[in-house]
Amino acid sequence: MDKQHIIGIDLGGTKIGIVLADLEGKIIYQDTSPTEAAKGEEAVLENIFIAINKLLNETKKDINDIKAIGIGSPGPLNPKTGVIIETANLPFRNFPLVKRIEEKLNIPTYLDNDANVAAIGEFMFGAGQDTENMIYITVSTGIGTGAILNGKLYRGSHYNALEGGHTTIRKTDIRCGCGRLDCIESTSSGTGIKKLALRALETDVETSLRKYDDVTSYEVYLEHLNGDEVAKGILKEAFYNLGIFVSNLMTLFDPDKILIGGGVSQMGDVMFDAIKEVAKERCFDVTFSNCIITQASLGKNSGIIGAIALAITEEEGKK
Amino acid sequence: MDKQHIIGIDLGGTKIGIVLADLEGKIIYQDTSPTEAAKGEEAVLENIFIAINKLLNETKKDINDIKAIGIGSPGPLNPKTGVIIETANLPFRNFPLVKRIEEKLNIPTYLDNDANVAAIGEFMFGAGQDTENMIYITVSTGIGTGAILNGKLYRGSHYNALEGGHTTIRKTDIRCGCGRLDCIESTSSGTGIKKLALRALETDVETSLRKYDDVTSYEVYLEHLNGDEVAKGILKEAFYNLGIFVSNLMTLFDPDKILIGGGVSQMGDVMFDAIKEVAKERCFDVTFSNCIITQASLGKNSGIIGAIALAITEEEGKK
Repeated sequence: MDKQHIIGIDLGGTKIGIVLADLEGKIIYQDTSPTEAAKGEEAVLENIFIAINKLLNETKKDINDIKAIGIGSPGPLNPKTGVIIETANLPFRNFPLVKRIEEKLNIPTYLDNDANVAAIGEFMFGAGQDTENMIYITVSTGIGTGAILNGKLYRGSHYNALEGGHTTIRKTDIRCGCGRLDCIESTSSGTGIKKLALRALETDVETSLRKYDDVTSYEVYLEHLNGDEVAKGILKEAFYNLGIFVSNLMTLFDPDKILIGGGVSQMGDVMFDAIKEVAKERCFDVTFSNCIITQASLGKNSGIIGAIALAITEEEGKK
Repeated sequence: MDKQHIIGIDLGGTKIGIVLADLEGKIIYQDTSPTEAAKGEEAVLENIFIAINKLLNETKKDINDIKAIGIGSPGPLNPKTGVIIETANLPFRNFPLVKRIEEKLNIPTYLDNDANVAAIGEFMFGAGQDTENMIYITVSTGIGTGAILNGKLYRGSHYNALEGGHTTIRKTDIRCGCGRLDCIESTSSGTGIKKLALRALETDVETSLRKYDDVTSYEVYLEHLNGDEVAKGILKEAFYNLGIFVSNLMTLFDPDKILIGGGVSQMGDVMFDAIKEVAKERCFDVTFSNCIITQASLGKNSGIIGAIALAITEEEGKK
């Protein structure tokens, strides 16, 4: 057995994404299956094993052809012990996921959180390939961040670094999902944009957003495109704050690149132009002019490709 | 010649500090002499050579006993090329300080900025000795920061990382020395505290600060101790903002320690208690409860000890 393959798993609240790749990250097989989170932690674990078996069957591989398994999951989790401490959308509570998989399959298995995994993926196989220092930001339901510093994922002393969504850059009096006030995530994530919209809709301001039963960041974007002043004001506030956040990251990390992914980043120029305008104003010239702020390149595949990159990186680190 | 000694130089606007130390950082000789910045860059360079010669004479050492020279200087500067780009209080403009010293003395010479040098000093010989990840913050005329990450000084891609004093955490409408609005330095450094005091004195509020011809952060501290409500309010604002800044650093870097030095940190509990209160409120428990926020330990010697630590570290890195 030559162990020339890696399995990457993207563990989500509704779907398990799985891929088989070679050691250069080339994808040979890709599939998704339901997580069935409501059935509890043992059921989800079983669904992971079912997905692995299906992958092996369909690719005609043996488990001994697999060099390592990488897993990206929502956190908090401990990448060193392989324990998922707790997540909002999965049933795992202090669950030793890595140990359980290694016991059954006897293959080295690595776990890290979504943002870290996506950061390694972009660094190894995506838009961050030519960098030494890069920050990955996902702007989605929340805001997650991961950092590659001096060519390595930076995790901090207690595996809790780069919780960027919960830094403060403005007094907002908006409460974040974490319970605190003024987190950047509470105005500038998808949820944050929705909160700003609901706040506007509570006033008697005239806005085309009122035609929707449910307003999310997507409807705000649509009405922004339609020229609605309220929608434009909401995105202006959200992305101004995001711009200050990005500027702070640039001023602290002086990176080669800031890569932004996640659903909200699909808004494109309206987001990127606003961020760059603030960063140009707030950062030192040497920092701004040498840092590329651009879209992450792996898109919806960031989780599985990142899981592959995590496994390859950790196996390399063992040498 | 056994090259068992290091020269450390702390280059300041008014004084050149110099030490001779052994390879364990033990100080054998220490002196200061005038910088004479007004006389121009060649005169300052000559004063550095005079200080080195005096050190060699008084310690009865030969230049060939010196393994390396470390220099801490205000920035911006380029530690890789050894060029001081520009500083507010020294005459150097794009001056190749390292090259000029190495050409004359033929001893490996290393240059870095004050905050980075102090961070390495604390990490190697001070309160940061037992850490893997630590942030050093000096709260003085300005606010400088340096970071040791995974046991190494983090400089960023363009040697401009950790310009923490110029991150934003609050809308303040106070202009910073850098020309921008809302830098943390503009409310929470010594200069920032003075600005808050001057802003209060421009109103007709009753305050014992009016008895001073010149109000600096020191007089604000004195009148805070005397119970003046305005002085207390100024420090409350300054240190609340500083607390948010420290919380953001903890949330991003998840360090073992935050070490705070510089003149303003001499205020002690009034500063540290305020910071810890905010950090406890703003950081995740795992981050706050595992991070020690405390006074840097090298005090006024942070520059020269840091210069020694820089030289030792860089020489080690060459191996």
